[in-house]
Amino acid sequence: MITSASNVQVKKIRALNSKAKIRREEGLFVAEGTRLFREIPPMLREHVYVSESFYREHADILNGICYDVLEENLFRRVCDTKTPQGILTVAKIPEWSRNDLLDAGGNAPLILVLEDLQDPGNVGTMIRTAEAAGVTGVVVSTGTADLYQPKVIRSTMGSIFRVPLRREENLEETVHWLKEKKIRVFGAHLKGSQSYADQDYTEGTAFCIGNEGNGLSEKLTGMLDSRIRIPMEGQVESLNAAISAAVLLYTAHAQRTAGYSNH
Amino acid sequence: MITSASNVQVKKIRALNSKAKIRREEGLFVAEGTRLFREIPPMLREHVYVSESFYREHADILNGICYDVLEENLFRRVCDTKTPQGILTVAKIPEWSRNDLLDAGGNAPLILVLEDLQDPGNVGTMIRTAEAAGVTGVVVSTGTADLYQPKVIRSTMGSIFRVPLRREENLEETVHWLKEKKIRVFGAHLKGSQSYADQDYTEGTAFCIGNEGNGLSEKLTGMLDSRIRIPMEGQVESLNAAISAAVLLYTAHAQRTAGYSNH
Repeated sequence: MITSASNVQVKKIRALNSKAKIRREEGLFVAEGTRLFREIPPMLREHVYVSESFYREHADILNGICYDVLEENLFRRVCDTKTPQGILTVAKIPEWSRNDLLDAGGNAPLILVLEDLQDPGNVGTMIRTAEAAGVTGVVVSTGTADLYQPKVIRSTMGSIFRVPLRREENLEETVHWLKEKKIRVFGAHLKGSQSYADQDYTEGTAFCIGNEGNGLSEKLTGMLDSRIRIPMEGQVESLNAAISAAVLLYTAHAQRTAGYSNH
Repeated sequence: MITSASNVQVKKIRALNSKAKIRREEGLFVAEGTRLFREIPPMLREHVYVSESFYREHADILNGICYDVLEENLFRRVCDTKTPQGILTVAKIPEWSRNDLLDAGGNAPLILVLEDLQDPGNVGTMIRTAEAAGVTGVVVSTGTADLYQPKVIRSTMGSIFRVPLRREENLEETVHWLKEKKIRVFGAHLKGSQSYADQDYTEGTAFCIGNEGNGLSEKLTGMLDSRIRIPMEGQVESLNAAISAAVLLYTAHAQRTAGYSNH
């Protein structure tokens, strides 16, 4: 049993929980709780840590798994959650190729592109919604909140392990590549000239969502095939970014499942 | 200038910011920041407090308004936000009648019903999205997060002052009343038998959204005209409540603005 806060492994868990740079250097992150423990594909599982009490009560689920036991209070201190469940997994950051983003059993690609989104809960919610709406991949700019921080992980509810995800240094170049792959690139834009509801999303489609405060950058806006607008009644000036993403993704989903097309 | 933390007004602001009970007893709440100060209808404005520095720099916007100046650090201490903008408004909680919920220039009513939603940011986002999608009113159960707490207020971005809102002791009775008014009551339900996308929302429509963890209560579920399901791909087990509400409300909005009907 590990009892010391200065233990090398304990220090590493804490660093992985708090520092994006360390996560990127090590290619590892921390996922807390029973649910995420179950959802992490075994291939990505690096090591598991449990609290003393978890070990006493649930030793059965640890069969065949590499784990260490942490002293009760020490376990609580390394966790990001306030009421930890007694188990955390150090996991490998999944690596996806660009082509992984396009492929989901032969359907037309449906891609969510996030430019410089800041709110971790929102980013997590978008990834979860994206999986639910059947995206084939998610691309985020390097200016977007780190995907493997505890709050994003929690709000994805496991989608972070399943949705092909790439962080791209150069989002313009990535959008250029999407266009080469015959994917139509739409951007949610307050000054969009067309209503989102009148477009056809049954072919290869990418939706770009911009930063919460500033929207899409001019550079990216200039590359869009179409600027679309989600109409707003009353005096609302903008929608929450995750809400915009959901409206667009589920409109695409509805069209795709109804076999709708306006060609 | 008020300089003492034991000043009666200072104590009241703090109590209004932190206690739902006090807000309800007094019929007042606190809205922080310049934007909300501007958006509060003058009829609802009870009193304004500014910091010394705000007073020095922006005295012009206080013309004709009842206000007091708080010593700089004291102002910061009464605020809920970490980086306050130097102005806060004590405002009356708007009161809406049931009929206010139905009326928005003669359109068919579109109502959002929230049962026991807990997350204040989510509740605020739903109210903002509801205004944007053209709802005529929002009803919440008494078990829902208090609507006039700082975090809800902030995330509504001003919609809290504009959308007819009622907190109802007895949600079943309210739903009964909606049905009497010929409003079709739909509930988002994981075991819904019909896809949300196949329904007609152009007539009077209410969408019920249940608690984040438990969904709609059995009682309310039993009263629905229709249980609808938002299909989910991959291994997603549920959507965030605000995301579900947005998908439903914007589907209704799209149908209503396209003149769609499947009668």
